[in-house]
Amino acid sequence: MASKKAVAVIIGVGPGLGASLAKRFAAGGYSIGLIARKESSLQPVQSELEQSGHTAMSVTADAGDAASIKNAIDTIRKKFDNDPEVLLYNASGFFYGGILDLKPEVLQAALNTTVIGALAASQEVLPGMIKNGKGTILFTGATASLRGSANFAGFAISKFGLRALGQSMARELGPQGQSMARELGPQGIHVAHIVIDGGIHSPNQAESQPDKDIDSFLNSDAIAETYWQLHIQPRSTWTQELDLRPSVEQF
Amino acid sequence: MASKKAVAVIIGVGPGLGASLAKRFAAGGYSIGLIARKESSLQPVQSELEQSGHTAMSVTADAGDAASIKNAIDTIRKKFDNDPEVLLYNASGFFYGGILDLKPEVLQAALNTTVIGALAASQEVLPGMIKNGKGTILFTGATASLRGSANFAGFAISKFGLRALGQSMARELGPQGQSMARELGPQGIHVAHIVIDGGIHSPNQAESQPDKDIDSFLNSDAIAETYWQLHIQPRSTWTQELDLRPSVEQF
Amino acid sequence: MASKKAVAVIIGVGPGLGASLAKRFAAGGYSIGLIARKESSLQPVQSELEQSGHTAMSVTADAGDAASIKNAIDTIRKKFDNDPEVLLYNASGFFYGGILDLKPEVLQAALNTTVIGALAASQEVLPGMIKNGKGTILFTGATASLRGSANFAGFAISKFGLRALGQSMARELGPQGQSMARELGPQGIHVAHIVIDGGIHSPNQAESQPDKDIDSFLNSDAIAETYWQLHIQPRSTWTQELDLRPSVEQF
Amino acid sequence: MASKKAVAVIIGVGPGLGASLAKRFAAGGYSIGLIARKESSLQPVQSELEQSGHTAMSVTADAGDAASIKNAIDTIRKKFDNDPEVLLYNASGFFYGGILDLKPEVLQAALNTTVIGALAASQEVLPGMIKNGKGTILFTGATASLRGSANFAGFAISKFGLRALGQSMARELGPQGQSMARELGPQGIHVAHIVIDGGIHSPNQAESQPDKDIDSFLNSDAIAETYWQLHIQPRSTWTQELDLRPSVEQF
Repeated sequence: MASKKAVAVIIGVGPGLGASLAKRFAAGGYSIGLIARKESSLQPVQSELEQSGHTAMSVTADAGDAASIKNAIDTIRKKFDNDPEVLLYNASGFFYGGILDLKPEVLQAALNTTVIGALAASQEVLPGMIKNGKGTILFTGATASLRGSANFAGFAISKFGLRALGQSMARELGPQGQSMARELGPQGIHVAHIVIDGGIHSPNQAESQPDKDIDSFLNSDAIAETYWQLHIQPRSTWTQELDLRPSVEQF
Repeated sequence: MASKKAVAVIIGVGPGLGASLAKRFAAGGYSIGLIARKESSLQPVQSELEQSGHTAMSVTADAGDAASIKNAIDTIRKKFDNDPEVLLYNASGFFYGGILDLKPEVLQAALNTTVIGALAASQEVLPGMIKNGKGTILFTGATASLRGSANFAGFAISKFGLRALGQSMARELGPQGQSMARELGPQGIHVAHIVIDGGIHSPNQAESQPDKDIDSFLNSDAIAETYWQLHIQPRSTWTQELDLRPSVEQF
Repeated sequence: MASKKAVAVIIGVGPGLGASLAKRFAAGGYSIGLIARKESSLQPVQSELEQSGHTAMSVTADAGDAASIKNAIDTIRKKFDNDPEVLLYNASGFFYGGILDLKPEVLQAALNTTVIGALAASQEVLPGMIKNGKGTILFTGATASLRGSANFAGFAISKFGLRALGQSMARELGPQGQSMARELGPQGIHVAHIVIDGGIHSPNQAESQPDKDIDSFLNSDAIAETYWQLHIQPRSTWTQELDLRPSVEQF
Repeated sequence: MASKKAVAVIIGVGPGLGASLAKRFAAGGYSIGLIARKESSLQPVQSELEQSGHTAMSVTADAGDAASIKNAIDTIRKKFDNDPEVLLYNASGFFYGGILDLKPEVLQAALNTTVIGALAASQEVLPGMIKNGKGTILFTGATASLRGSANFAGFAISKFGLRALGQSMARELGPQGQSMARELGPQGIHVAHIVIDGGIHSPNQAESQPDKDIDSFLNSDAIAETYWQLHIQPRSTWTQELDLRPSVEQF
């Protein structure tokens, strides 16, 4: 019997980073489960994967709704008949504006999409990873993960929170006094946080931005390659956090 | 006509830090508005203030409910017939446990109390501070503001978020293109974040902890003195963040 | 017999921060030992202190020469017949320019003045502080303590190093297996690092900068007040690091 | 005429990380210039490279002596008749002990080896990199790059300083008003800092440490792979800093 292909789940898929991650992990031999809020974000990516002979499926879900995200992952697990070995979490709320214009319910929604969705998704994949003794969970951060800037309160609060979640998980010791109370690290589960400091350019979008200076954007395929390299780091030598920015970016 | 006393609002009041802050700012000449979830947390503090001849009032509110916290501040404003000049935000959710035990709704509640309440309270006091050209907003942080540790994901996510809020506000430029779009700093509004790294001991609680080593706890009156010193810093020389810990604390 | 006045040593004295620190700690009851490279930097400060009825003495020394700085402190100790209880270290090298223009010997000199002088001075005062069970050592940092910027390599390397020294000392456990091997903290020695993020304006210099916007500079007297407040923090509630900047500073 | 092979210079070579870096970059097609203080550290690495058909040469030099390190790089440049395209800097001083036992001259020596050697080496390779429009400079950091711990003052001061150097170079704008005054980044020179948080195990040393738990050490070959991946990042998507530690390391 042929062994089942390993499964990677990507949450927050669009024509940019999500598509590049899907292609990179598919090329690495993974069946890809794509999750986004809108069908229209998913179909082009799935089509491109299938045309290249890769295995992919799409599920729409709202990353800001814990039950929705858990159901979507469960659907992928059942369809591929395998526990996800990789979780890539890109979904994120965004609000730009002054502090007096940031409505509490808008901040709640941003936190739901950016942080609570990441928690729910992690909780859905972790038991399988623990059982199988390996797994990779990568969270997509931003400049705002490290710095609360003017007019970015809503985004920074969410991205700071996601970074805290990643750190706590990387250091996770499990509930005390329970049989599952072993560290995530020694069980082979690698949690890392990638700080993307700059705008992302997708090769897919090239024709639509003919007048922009390509070198001033991060390349989404290059970002995806870094995610892949983090994934394949041996467990003796893991990165918990790194930054990525264009060579011309001021920082 | 006698000028009205300036008003300080303290959110998250109990027998420890909240009580010490109330006493210190009352001694500094402020009318004190006390807000906590439970009447029983407020009454002893208010009584102590009044017995010392200070002006104080108490309002119960749920810091995790934006409308509730805004109403409470509004009640204080009307009663004292004055815009709050000082906002001290201590309210905080807490959850200790492994990542698989942190329910999404528990994390949402912690975020509501720790971060969204701070946003709502700031939004309620900022217009008056901007109008009057001065104000101080101090957020109470913790070790977990800087570091996501195992079993502290819920607390760290919330405290990271609060820190991001404080940074963004300190750097606040206001909504673009509007008349109010000036920086908070030049308008005299000082936003700072205090990282409390250790357990707090309140002199009020001394008799109930006879066997503990006093030197291994932060003293709540000493913390309150630091908040006061931050408040009276002249605007040429403001602190945005500092840490506080006992001399014997390992860090 | 009258008890001897406590002694504060200030290294790196000029008309700005050094003079303000001297006045603040003199007002707090300390005999002041002033150390700078040039007699002309010291005399105006000493004269001002003496005219106000304070006790002060000046010693010229090169902060970049460990023996010189140790001798200067020893001279102060003998003259005042008392171990210094406070050490304030402001001396600092500076170099602005591109990486290819930073000569290794210029960097060495900056490190000697900024870091090695601070080590030598600390080593000279620590035995007395340990013996007496109390002491305060404050290091003056800068924006460059936290961030290596273009053209600031020499300054940032030195200021990063000084910050590391302060952290290690604050966490100092002493040489293992020796009788002196107790922690500095529990022995009452408070080591803190102040990040000064902006240009400093001294009231003494006001007439020479008539056209500058006062509000865009830190006020040296206000900085000195913060140093004093750090010094008098009770040992239950110590700050290891804080930042200071004008309300109008972008950061 | 065959094009010359690109050159990588590795400073601070021993049987651990230096040897692994040499093998990885040799496998990537580079001629390797090896620099260490002792001939005995260099010969086994050079022999191993040559036996695998790679091009390598060794030069002894004292990383703590700017002239010595510059001469060594110049020797390599002349021998290979090519400007180095890659500089990997591992050399580092070390001192473990209490603050009172850290002699100023020992700290100076540590700074010379860890920081000033890195500056001198960078200055020796940068003009060629600028001329050729590309280059990679990677600095080896440690836990002590981010945290000054008790008994690690000497190491932390040096490693903080090296990190500051890397940041300033990554942000380098060049001397003002000169023709060379362009940013390093846009000229294709990638400067990154790797925080190695844990003990390193070299496969070469396996037999000599039969009783150690391999999983509790970073694997030097895996570290070298990460350096290589940093080197080949396209310029749209560069990392300035990342950490590396074993999955079982507490942090």
